[in-house]
Amino acid sequence: MRVGVVGASGYVGGEILRLLVSHPHAEITMVTSRQYVGEYISRVQPSLKGFTDLTFSELDYDKLTDKCDLVFTAVPHGTAVDIVKALYDRGMKVIDLSADYRLHNPADYDKWYGWQHPHPELLEKSVFGVPELHREEIKKSQIVSCPGCMAVTSILGLYPLIKKKIIDTEHIVVDSKIGSSGAGAGTVSGTHHAMRSGVIRPYKPAKHRHTGEIEQELSQAAGSKIKVSMSPHAVDIVRGILCTNHVFLKQQVSEMDLWKMYREQYQNERFVRLIRDKKGFYKFPDPKFVVGSNFCDVGFDIDEDNNRLVVLSASDNLMKGAAGSAIQNMNVMAGFNEMEGISYSPLTPV
Amino acid sequence: MRVGVVGASGYVGGEILRLLVSHPHAEITMVTSRQYVGEYISRVQPSLKGFTDLTFSELDYDKLTDKCDLVFTAVPHGTAVDIVKALYDRGMKVIDLSADYRLHNPADYDKWYGWQHPHPELLEKSVFGVPELHREEIKKSQIVSCPGCMAVTSILGLYPLIKKKIIDTEHIVVDSKIGSSGAGAGTVSGTHHAMRSGVIRPYKPAKHRHTGEIEQELSQAAGSKIKVSMSPHAVDIVRGILCTNHVFLKQQVSEMDLWKMYREQYQNERFVRLIRDKKGFYKFPDPKFVVGSNFCDVGFDIDEDNNRLVVLSASDNLMKGAAGSAIQNMNVMAGFNEMEGISYSPLTPV
Amino acid sequence: MRVGVVGASGYVGGEILRLLVSHPHAEITMVTSRQYVGEYISRVQPSLKGFTDLTFSELDYDKLTDKCDLVFTAVPHGTAVDIVKALYDRGMKVIDLSADYRLHNPADYDKWYGWQHPHPELLEKSVFGVPELHREEIKKSQIVSCPGCMAVTSILGLYPLIKKKIIDTEHIVVDSKIGSSGAGAGTVSGTHHAMRSGVIRPYKPAKHRHTGEIEQELSQAAGSKIKVSMSPHAVDIVRGILCTNHVFLKQQVSEMDLWKMYREQYQNERFVRLIRDKKGFYKFPDPKFVVGSNFCDVGFDIDEDNNRLVVLSASDNLMKGAAGSAIQNMNVMAGFNEMEGISYSPLTPV
Amino acid sequence: MRVGVVGASGYVGGEILRLLVSHPHAEITMVTSRQYVGEYISRVQPSLKGFTDLTFSELDYDKLTDKCDLVFTAVPHGTAVDIVKALYDRGMKVIDLSADYRLHNPADYDKWYGWQHPHPELLEKSVFGVPELHREEIKKSQIVSCPGCMAVTSILGLYPLIKKKIIDTEHIVVDSKIGSSGAGAGTVSGTHHAMRSGVIRPYKPAKHRHTGEIEQELSQAAGSKIKVSMSPHAVDIVRGILCTNHVFLKQQVSEMDLWKMYREQYQNERFVRLIRDKKGFYKFPDPKFVVGSNFCDVGFDIDEDNNRLVVLSASDNLMKGAAGSAIQNMNVMAGFNEMEGISYSPLTPV
Repeated sequence: MRVGVVGASGYVGGEILRLLVSHPHAEITMVTSRQYVGEYISRVQPSLKGFTDLTFSELDYDKLTDKCDLVFTAVPHGTAVDIVKALYDRGMKVIDLSADYRLHNPADYDKWYGWQHPHPELLEKSVFGVPELHREEIKKSQIVSCPGCMAVTSILGLYPLIKKKIIDTEHIVVDSKIGSSGAGAGTVSGTHHAMRSGVIRPYKPAKHRHTGEIEQELSQAAGSKIKVSMSPHAVDIVRGILCTNHVFLKQQVSEMDLWKMYREQYQNERFVRLIRDKKGFYKFPDPKFVVGSNFCDVGFDIDEDNNRLVVLSASDNLMKGAAGSAIQNMNVMAGFNEMEGISYSPLTPV
Repeated sequence: MRVGVVGASGYVGGEILRLLVSHPHAEITMVTSRQYVGEYISRVQPSLKGFTDLTFSELDYDKLTDKCDLVFTAVPHGTAVDIVKALYDRGMKVIDLSADYRLHNPADYDKWYGWQHPHPELLEKSVFGVPELHREEIKKSQIVSCPGCMAVTSILGLYPLIKKKIIDTEHIVVDSKIGSSGAGAGTVSGTHHAMRSGVIRPYKPAKHRHTGEIEQELSQAAGSKIKVSMSPHAVDIVRGILCTNHVFLKQQVSEMDLWKMYREQYQNERFVRLIRDKKGFYKFPDPKFVVGSNFCDVGFDIDEDNNRLVVLSASDNLMKGAAGSAIQNMNVMAGFNEMEGISYSPLTPV
Repeated sequence: MRVGVVGASGYVGGEILRLLVSHPHAEITMVTSRQYVGEYISRVQPSLKGFTDLTFSELDYDKLTDKCDLVFTAVPHGTAVDIVKALYDRGMKVIDLSADYRLHNPADYDKWYGWQHPHPELLEKSVFGVPELHREEIKKSQIVSCPGCMAVTSILGLYPLIKKKIIDTEHIVVDSKIGSSGAGAGTVSGTHHAMRSGVIRPYKPAKHRHTGEIEQELSQAAGSKIKVSMSPHAVDIVRGILCTNHVFLKQQVSEMDLWKMYREQYQNERFVRLIRDKKGFYKFPDPKFVVGSNFCDVGFDIDEDNNRLVVLSASDNLMKGAAGSAIQNMNVMAGFNEMEGISYSPLTPV
Repeated sequence: MRVGVVGASGYVGGEILRLLVSHPHAEITMVTSRQYVGEYISRVQPSLKGFTDLTFSELDYDKLTDKCDLVFTAVPHGTAVDIVKALYDRGMKVIDLSADYRLHNPADYDKWYGWQHPHPELLEKSVFGVPELHREEIKKSQIVSCPGCMAVTSILGLYPLIKKKIIDTEHIVVDSKIGSSGAGAGTVSGTHHAMRSGVIRPYKPAKHRHTGEIEQELSQAAGSKIKVSMSPHAVDIVRGILCTNHVFLKQQVSEMDLWKMYREQYQNERFVRLIRDKKGFYKFPDPKFVVGSNFCDVGFDIDEDNNRLVVLSASDNLMKGAAGSAIQNMNVMAGFNEMEGISYSPLTPV
């Protein structure tokens, strides 16, 4: 399959390239970057030295259409919206990694982004790119919109509970912790190593934009409007995200029943690992143990005193949280084995 | 004032020594460690090289009584309980940094520690060492028990809200993130740098022991039983703790009213800084900006959609979370200026 | 090929397993650990969850001989010496990761390890496992001894200069910097996260044991005795090693000539990347950009003022510095494509 | 003493302010920053919240002259040169933190900075601000130029050896490792946390500018031209620098004689600690154990095999390497106790 990547100078674009150079059924045919036209990719993404001799091109829709069967768009929110439209209009398959096609309801763009979506008619054509939830739709779709890392990680943790309607949906607290690659490659004083190291920095404790995606997907699973209280924090790692999903049980549920619900949901999913151990080193999900892999690890602990359930879900924000999901979606769309090119074990310790 | 430190080979004991060597009214007269008897302190606490020529002694109650006016006990939970009793019986003033005298109700030791307290009669004589809450009692007490770092940080964040009775006390979620010095100096595979770096590791997501202290203090403030849902996480820093306290408002409260409540509570407190900024670098508390200081920074964000209030509280777990509070308590007990020896500004960036 | 791993509970053993589970021509048939007999491997090496259902066995030479065609030994120095001998006597192919068979001259064990080698007759049968230097011998050998990470990284940087005899061999300074996984999984106070984070800790600035391996290989290349002045430092990363090799030129050599020497040596080597860029992000080798890969990146800078050449060489200490080299050696011994199972691109950023 | 700080929005300026707010004899009367005129200092330097209510002013020489007795200039190289001149001409005492007045020979600015110094006549009036070397001159000087962190750390390590003329001055290798605060607060892609974390990044392995300062001072001590081969590396810490000074002995010298030379040089220096321990935790200097203090720790190891001496010197690059030295110089110039305001013990662990 001939593949193009639009906007490949950032961390997510770089990760897509890293996965594609080793993918057995993909050939990278065109890579664009406004900033680096003509430069060797490996100058900007130095770890790819020896893996590709390609250079960055300008964004040219005719060439993309000519050279590629499928295009990944890894440009900032707001920039993707017209590029995806243009490619769609040319009949291309597109996997978008921005937020521009994640929400189905145009009004949600007003609410969360303060922005009127210019192509609302495309929103219903775009599928939310979590194969574990929407595999059949993804197979048939021309546009797949990959979720944010907080969204996919949190959703996979909460989904079975929502579907089984066993939790109080008024008090869902998602406290997430994320590494610095999640902020993108832009340089501001807050991302300077001296300022970003050693932080446990709350950012947007209330009303974070990605809440919208989580509410959309969980509400759809529940068949009713779900409210989510999400608060993200920047912590001193580069890769990885943990969502600590604090929920309150409507009724008493045994640990065994809970595991049963999770197994039922995920038993055939290769990229969701259920983490359950009473002793040993790895009792609960921790992003350290998924780095470099496409896994989302899920586990939980029960707080009987308070009728609380703490669901932990962990992933690599550049893999399952972005580029890994993107390749997984490509595999589904193209009819490849879903694990092709993303079956890596985690790199540990790192 | 002649001061002794029992158990000074760990991180908390080392921090107490570090503060004492520069304290204008304290003289360290005896320092004990079972493991290092006869060794120079600066061999075990190398940053103290040049600040003290003392060596570690064995624990000897007669010598302690003879040489000291006040003793800090910085030994593990369960070990302190008899040492404090012995010192108390000899009439010494004691500031304990273990959990052994924090809970007033003996039954709470059964519940949280699975342990029957051998000296329950002393529990009511011990004061919970947060001067911001119990200054007058501390002045008159012979035993002061310093709180755990999660407890003091969380309590200072939530206290004004509890006192004003404006939050739903059934759904208090305290999600805390803490550095590796909080685990103590013991070496197990989980604290090895290669395994501990890069983690966002949930430990004891439900039923963590320090919940008991928080519930005790908040319940006392509320005049009724308060339940707290606390989940701590180990993150990749050495010093610092952030408590993200998610609470739900019983009624609508304006931002201005909330600040008023916090100012009312803390306006005369030198070690609680209220953090409030709409722009700039430091909008919410972050332990990075209190490292080395005795501050607990407190701030919040309002999530109107969900009637949620996110209260952020941050401190240096070895300072306000342990040794800094201990010196603050000493200052109160001895009638010194409360800031003496702990007025350091944070060390930034570090 | 049926493969066994003796001593697989540490970081190097874990990395060998990680590589083997995805190797197309290798099947793991037996894995031993004294400490964890009967435990699932994935409990000790959590990133392997989902990749293997094997458990740890006791070390049993008959079973190993029966079940395996080749055995990796990843046990501490001093422990490997008899295990390798026993396997050798049973006719097994062995790839040893300890230092016990690296030095060919028994007297060197006295000098560097203060230890009389019990099986000196095997030392000449063991090949130093750097395919870039000894490929043909490795093909025919029954014992291959993988070099230490400092040795292989430094040797690959210096080898072409030594062979060309252009540097002063009395003043070779190798200043190396290495991550915490290089120290092994043992827990001592110096590896505790709180003590190991933030260090730039010189350890053994003079007379470090691994100097012996470097001198052996460079002396062989030079045809005369070479002295190396090596000083390792622990820095705050988990994976990676940089050797800064400071050498003084005997004569003036142009940059172009130097590159020519390096290209001549390494042009057919897939795992040595020459790093040379005047602008852009990656001007000199940096272990950050080889993490997870089997590359050794090599580059240099010329200090005309002092007739000095600074050769930088970087690798992932668990990959090219240990397990990656081990698999590379296995591929050579077995006649597989040398890149099989270790062709990963670096994971960046991480 | 009334003190001004020109350029106080960066890390060095912030550190000067941090020290000044607690200095018993200094009063900050004016603080300038082009970028933040009118802003509260604590918005830009958040750790100072509660310590000062000052705002940033524009650079105004008349006001500075009026309000201050002494001015620190903490602006970039090239910017300081005219500001220092203007203040000098107005009769002010100036302590400059840039490189603009460190070199006494105008030709050295051509060589190392590619820049013709506009005020060469001032170079001989400026004293190189290391009190351990130039205390008497500093007392009488109107301009003191603080050294770079690599320079002061390396010089203090090598000085006694140079003075005693016991080392080969053709092969002095200074391999230094430094934290991210040393690069200043500017934001480029190389300082982004995701790119700067986990590095061991050589920068300018040959011909680094600060070599000039080291050569100047050591040559002066030797009475002859000394060549230094310096190579700095960025490592993953925020604060701290280690210089590994590899030198070759001209003659055999015993360990005892070496310590004697060091003690002779530094016995009355409060800010140089000699580190020497055969066991225990702290055998060689490590910047981890000087963080927050004004110490330069110095130690060594002898490599008899190669006639090499490895001198380790460690400091906090923002303290002894910049702001701490600046305050020390102020104390000397003003006749205060030299330790006033900078007698902090290191903060450990952090």
